[in-house]
Amino acid sequence: MTSTPMLPASALSGVRQVVRRTPAYPFTPVSAAIKLDQNESALDLPAELRDLALQRLAHTEWNRYPDLHADTLRDKIAEFEDWNPDGVVVTPGSNVLIKLLTEMAGVNQRVLSVQPNFSVYGLEASMLGATLLQVPLKPDFSLPVEGLVAELQKGGPGLLFVTQPHAPTGHLDAESDVKAVLDAAGDDWVAVLDEAYYQFADSDGRALVAERSNRISLRTCSKAWGLAGLRLGYALTSPELAQNLQKLVSAFNINILTQTVAMTALEHPEYMRQRVAQTVQERQRILAALQGHPVYTGLPSQGNFFLLKTPDAAAAYQHLLSRGLLVRRQDGMPMLEGCLRIGIGTPEQNSALLAALAEVTG
Amino acid sequence: MTSTPMLPASALSGVRQVVRRTPAYPFTPVSAAIKLDQNESALDLPAELRDLALQRLAHTEWNRYPDLHADTLRDKIAEFEDWNPDGVVVTPGSNVLIKLLTEMAGVNQRVLSVQPNFSVYGLEASMLGATLLQVPLKPDFSLPVEGLVAELQKGGPGLLFVTQPHAPTGHLDAESDVKAVLDAAGDDWVAVLDEAYYQFADSDGRALVAERSNRISLRTCSKAWGLAGLRLGYALTSPELAQNLQKLVSAFNINILTQTVAMTALEHPEYMRQRVAQTVQERQRILAALQGHPVYTGLPSQGNFFLLKTPDAAAAYQHLLSRGLLVRRQDGMPMLEGCLRIGIGTPEQNSALLAALAEVTG
Repeated sequence: MTSTPMLPASALSGVRQVVRRTPAYPFTPVSAAIKLDQNESALDLPAELRDLALQRLAHTEWNRYPDLHADTLRDKIAEFEDWNPDGVVVTPGSNVLIKLLTEMAGVNQRVLSVQPNFSVYGLEASMLGATLLQVPLKPDFSLPVEGLVAELQKGGPGLLFVTQPHAPTGHLDAESDVKAVLDAAGDDWVAVLDEAYYQFADSDGRALVAERSNRISLRTCSKAWGLAGLRLGYALTSPELAQNLQKLVSAFNINILTQTVAMTALEHPEYMRQRVAQTVQERQRILAALQGHPVYTGLPSQGNFFLLKTPDAAAAYQHLLSRGLLVRRQDGMPMLEGCLRIGIGTPEQNSALLAALAEVTG
Repeated sequence: MTSTPMLPASALSGVRQVVRRTPAYPFTPVSAAIKLDQNESALDLPAELRDLALQRLAHTEWNRYPDLHADTLRDKIAEFEDWNPDGVVVTPGSNVLIKLLTEMAGVNQRVLSVQPNFSVYGLEASMLGATLLQVPLKPDFSLPVEGLVAELQKGGPGLLFVTQPHAPTGHLDAESDVKAVLDAAGDDWVAVLDEAYYQFADSDGRALVAERSNRISLRTCSKAWGLAGLRLGYALTSPELAQNLQKLVSAFNINILTQTVAMTALEHPEYMRQRVAQTVQERQRILAALQGHPVYTGLPSQGNFFLLKTPDAAAAYQHLLSRGLLVRRQDGMPMLEGCLRIGIGTPEQNSALLAALAEVTG
């Protein structure tokens, strides 16, 4: 499969070589007063919804398995999304969907995506024995349509990942460009549209996904819904594709606690919409304030985060940390030299960020 | 890979053929007054522990990701199990561990187990492209030591599953037999000891697992702990193997709600031990009462369930259902003709079961 040398024999020779070679997931927790490093919502579920969810939790049976595929929750998501419930699949976080899709359409096949990108696509592809192809984004971070179409036309079978808006760049492409890529996927590829941040871009891939049965949208409760601690992601797709994906979902995978809290949130989506509006407003305020900054450049974004281009990412990171602000370095990724990824916080947190950035004058 | 014919071209040609061919997980929910079909605990967490957990949940942040690998919970499990925390891996149910182990040591390698068995071993192996080998149990349901050793010596690399006590038979093997199989696995196999039901057998594989770094015990909070609704399973293994397995665990995979409730339970293990003692006592009462039954045979078991051998599993299942008792048919499995699997319930539930069974006199 590869030209890398064999690992020496060890007591773990049963572990596949590619797993032994893979480094651990790159995340080290750091404490700080203001956490802007994981693109979480800065605000928890409103207090009255938390109370309601806790009351409901007090009346659920914890000793019984949840239902096999979380049908009640899937129905609620389907209603919210105006989607066929038979085309909804739920998992403990949308990163699990990325794994299961790779199992379904990547093992011993191809996985195609872009670079830079969310690291999990490539990690799962490599570890599960897929041939990984990554086409560089264009210099303005837009989708490399021609490059992706060329790879798709070389043939599958395989799995395509397109992220809209993209992370970590925050770039949103024209729908016609996304459509051109998805159309080129034909029948031989399963085409994934990862929409983890769609609410902040006011974009919506459902119409594109509904066009063909091999398309799928990934969505999450971790960002706009403010429920990262619950671990709930979901897919919107055709009933045929959902039926196949569901075979790979571990039985009873959404615990009764997460189901109960998520149902409560989905019944009250107004809070989510209000927060998205405030986050978008704050994003625009931050990026406007950074115009004309003597050292740093805030790059435009359609997510609940943005990239800050700096001359020295390590120094900028440390400066912010010294002011109690934790952000994420992205300067190790292709095309992102000097970049930090910064989440949008509360207005107070964002003002603290701007004050800390204003201290740097040259 | 196989000699089965190609599936016709379809809009889902990107989905691997083996996934398209695989039937869905065989579970259909049925309502009944007394649920004895999933080997759950008949009792929830004690009320005072539920209240304590709910109080703690009211003070956790739901909008923040949990810690990457649930380190606090892993430490607590390590303390309870007297195990190195670096050798503990937690997932949303131990069925997820079976999937991840298959990813780690099964893809394009071999998976070896026995038959009849928990269906998930074989399902994951097949779908993830492992060569699946299943050696029949001996007629008394004991481990086919010679057969397994012969397969192991033919060579790996691969993944071995041994379940103690076994499910669905409830059989517990002599530790020397388990050791003989694990020893034959050498370095080329990852050797899994699935101990989902160990508390009810008063067995303990930790010493065997600690002997070599490629061994691993799977345990769960779904049975003795009475927390099936939480979805929490864990592995005890060497730090080296845990480090590799952890690469395949999706980041942040244990939600904050499950972590909080599980911590509360692990701090108060007395309730679990009391319930295990009662379940074992009730199992013995049921099996004693069934001795001399004119039609049915209760097979000995070391689990929180037992097999009932009947002349007609469908008729026996329907009879029990008509009396409000839901059990699990197992008569489709090799060697289990006529068998139902029945969980141990509360004393009242078990008395209802015995009354219903006593109605059948020929």
